Amino acid sequence: MKPQGNEMANGLTPNNGLDLNDPSQYHTDGQLFLTEAFKIIMTEVLRKGTDVNEKVCEWRDPDELSALLDLELRDKGEEQPQLLQRVQDVAKYSVKTSHPRFLNQQFAGVDYHSLTGRFLTEALNTSQYTYEAAPVFVLMENEVLRKMRAMVGWTDGDGIFCPGGSISNMYALNLARYKTFPQVKGQGLWALPRLAVFASKESHYSVQKGASFLGIGMDNVFVVKADSRGCMIPEDLDEKIALAKSQGAVPLLVHATSGTTVLGSFDDLNRTADVCQKHKIWMHVDAAWGASVLFSKQHRHLMNGVNRADSVTWNPHKMLLTGLQCSVILLKDTTGLLNQSHSASATYLFQQDKFYDMSLDTGDKSIQCGRKVDCLKLWLMWKALGSEGFAARIDKAFALARYVTEELVKRDGFQLLEKPQYVNVCFWFIPPSLRGKNKDADYQERLAKVAPVVKERMTKKGSMMVGYQPQGDNVNFFRLVVLSPYVSQQDMDFFLDEIERLGKDL
Amino acid sequence: MKPQGNEMANGLTPNNGLDLNDPSQYHTDGQLFLTEAFKIIMTEVLRKGTDVNEKVCEWRDPDELSALLDLELRDKGEEQPQLLQRVQDVAKYSVKTSHPRFLNQQFAGVDYHSLTGRFLTEALNTSQYTYEAAPVFVLMENEVLRKMRAMVGWTDGDGIFCPGGSISNMYALNLARYKTFPQVKGQGLWALPRLAVFASKESHYSVQKGASFLGIGMDNVFVVKADSRGCMIPEDLDEKIALAKSQGAVPLLVHATSGTTVLGSFDDLNRTADVCQKHKIWMHVDAAWGASVLFSKQHRHLMNGVNRADSVTWNPHKMLLTGLQCSVILLKDTTGLLNQSHSASATYLFQQDKFYDMSLDTGDKSIQCGRKVDCLKLWLMWKALGSEGFAARIDKAFALARYVTEELVKRDGFQLLEKPQYVNVCFWFIPPSLRGKNKDADYQERLAKVAPVVKERMTKKGSMMVGYQPQGDNVNFFRLVVLSPYVSQQDMDFFLDEIERLGKDL
Repeated sequence: MKPQGNEMANGLTPNNGLDLNDPSQYHTDGQLFLTEAFKIIMTEVLRKGTDVNEKVCEWRDPDELSALLDLELRDKGEEQPQLLQRVQDVAKYSVKTSHPRFLNQQFAGVDYHSLTGRFLTEALNTSQYTYEAAPVFVLMENEVLRKMRAMVGWTDGDGIFCPGGSISNMYALNLARYKTFPQVKGQGLWALPRLAVFASKESHYSVQKGASFLGIGMDNVFVVKADSRGCMIPEDLDEKIALAKSQGAVPLLVHATSGTTVLGSFDDLNRTADVCQKHKIWMHVDAAWGASVLFSKQHRHLMNGVNRADSVTWNPHKMLLTGLQCSVILLKDTTGLLNQSHSASATYLFQQDKFYDMSLDTGDKSIQCGRKVDCLKLWLMWKALGSEGFAARIDKAFALARYVTEELVKRDGFQLLEKPQYVNVCFWFIPPSLRGKNKDADYQERLAKVAPVVKERMTKKGSMMVGYQPQGDNVNFFRLVVLSPYVSQQDMDFFLDEIERLGKDL
Repeated sequence: MKPQGNEMANGLTPNNGLDLNDPSQYHTDGQLFLTEAFKIIMTEVLRKGTDVNEKVCEWRDPDELSALLDLELRDKGEEQPQLLQRVQDVAKYSVKTSHPRFLNQQFAGVDYHSLTGRFLTEALNTSQYTYEAAPVFVLMENEVLRKMRAMVGWTDGDGIFCPGGSISNMYALNLARYKTFPQVKGQGLWALPRLAVFASKESHYSVQKGASFLGIGMDNVFVVKADSRGCMIPEDLDEKIALAKSQGAVPLLVHATSGTTVLGSFDDLNRTADVCQKHKIWMHVDAAWGASVLFSKQHRHLMNGVNRADSVTWNPHKMLLTGLQCSVILLKDTTGLLNQSHSASATYLFQQDKFYDMSLDTGDKSIQCGRKVDCLKLWLMWKALGSEGFAARIDKAFALARYVTEELVKRDGFQLLEKPQYVNVCFWFIPPSLRGKNKDADYQERLAKVAPVVKERMTKKGSMMVGYQPQGDNVNFFRLVVLSPYVSQQDMDFFLDEIERLGKDL
């Protein structure tokens, strides 16, 4: 199309590559590229990436990988074939987290309905703040939250999707603070007495990060003792609350955990609730990892008493395989606390003279402005599986974890830390040279070095990935996280065999 | 495969639908579903959703939409054809934000290379915290941040991708606070004097949200005057700092803006820096919306002085079309402030005896734990376009905004608020019945009702979407945000014609 005079005057000349009045070629080319890239994603990430005969990772040293990827960003753009090669390279050198031998984190596996929801979310590209910008997703978020609250045992309440469990946990802190001291929103913490937060030594480190970020301070997190299985000791919680009070601090929130990060322990929520009730403290349950047991008739007893909480964090991106990010904070509150504590009433988004029910403009409940849509992937997967499908998956993951635990104790050289409550299987591999030895300081020192070496070897070989860590007095041990129902007993057997192979000379 | 005895004992019987030792059918079925859904996404979202002859939105009242979507989540799962219909429905009733007539928010348009990066990110599903879990993305994030810092004018520094600009702005607050008062991390705000934050009345509402969330309090945000173009007045900033000091508060951070939300104004950064330097205050530039002008030789002068800032927020998901979410906080700091202020040293992630350079485990710089990968979409798009391609796009968007501004002032019934500095075109539509009337209270009241009605009509018709808002003494006016370079002059002309059509009887 020939440019008109005023186009020239405005700099809208076609000499910068595209005729602005005919972007159709742009869309055609772009859609072709996306279609070609989709084939690569299907082949490299989803077929090869889930094939047990392929490597779970293609290890390269950082310097070598940097060079291979040619990461530098330049002035000039590149041609499509080169860009498709880049898609291929990114796929090749990334860890295959859906691979059956990836047991390294609290996410794994792939759900194709969720993945479809994620692709659709990306293509629709909107922000979860107003009904006008996201009509489907505003209604959908409300429904998903309602259903999740029902599983917790609440017929009413509130909630919101957050970018990850750490931020969900921070919401709980802020809501508890606002509920008791609404003046904090305006005047800040200087208007308040010193606050105290309570969490067990096994709780997630986001309690510390949250206390720091919200200005409460890490030192005001009172660390409650846990028993050998990793569960918070209610008597010690009671004592720590008394201690805080004796120091003049105001107990703000008890942070209980359903499914601790390392051991997968479940705090006794009823006994925790008793203590919270006695002291009238906000009870938050960080069930980012564990809440999905609520689907299982067989295992939901682990969270008995959760209905007595004031707030619950739940990350479907972990056990439910929705993919990152998918986290919610659920609230028992029916007084609009979420909106009151976070609202700033921006007039350019939350106009008060719109033609529809403006209570559907839920964005002011959030500490964010633009907020990614995280509900569709969960909703579509839930529609596909039904709650019963989730239950079956959870039960299978438990069964697989129980299987590998039983196999492990049958073998020489494997030693469990504790019988798992959940799907975290924590154990030491004792190489032949250490078996039967005295468990003195030298032994511990040598044992501590086993897991890092085995981890290095499996990673460089690409045969599997599993995490390790020290914890308290326990030197480095493996943490096998069994969460994808689409791994097999053979994968579990392979895992034990492979540790023996990789560690037998240590 | 026949189940073995111990499978039965462990509950691993195949009667719950799948043989755990043969998940291949699961993958085959799932990949087929995804492939079918991809076709729907291509047709409904990307072809029809960008076609100017299709509607930009398919308005339904909330109750009707709820019923159409059948949102309820049930115990039983659904069959694939029904699920594909759901994909279709979600696409149909969602707003088409890539449509050339979507000018409603600070995001619009589609970049297919970015979208490819987003699909690949979703398929690879990992968390941006350690080199072992995300080798490609740790290196890539570092490179993208390095390049963005270079555009700000820094040869060194730090930074991190955050879930949105509001949280990026909160990082700046926390870093400024920690730098001056490192004891805040442990002891909280009670150990500190009252802090004061400074931001213009045109700044984004996340300053208020951040001050509240971080325990500083909204009342401790001193609101600085802006001139009629929406730019912060440095003399008033200086006075507000003196006022805060006189009240015994410690000035913590000046929050300047490059590209305000409503008017698209750019604060004078050099003059702001002079004031910050004089008072030795952290200078943060919220350039979430505006920073992309740095690509343009023609327009980067708007941010002269940005190199003098301590931190900068930049959201590529706005002007650069990466898609939500893509936001960074960039820092001039080279002392490791990001890590010091946020670290909690979780031993299960950030082991200190790994076999690779552990400084690559950058996750402890974040307030999050699991963190979505947001760098790939930007990196791949940058590789495709080069910095020059971005510059051309930015220049085109400016030219289009200038074009529509010029056309608008030629017409009766359109009145600009201010000549735009950026691509926000703010104006009133004065319907014939109000033209030439006295601008008294009655006039203002009637004018205020015009934009909501025109907005309702365009939305229900599906012809276009554009936002409106009141601001200060200004009653409701339209804010046209021209950011996608893949809209045409005809679209701009249509926009003005359509407002006239929809509002002529008011």
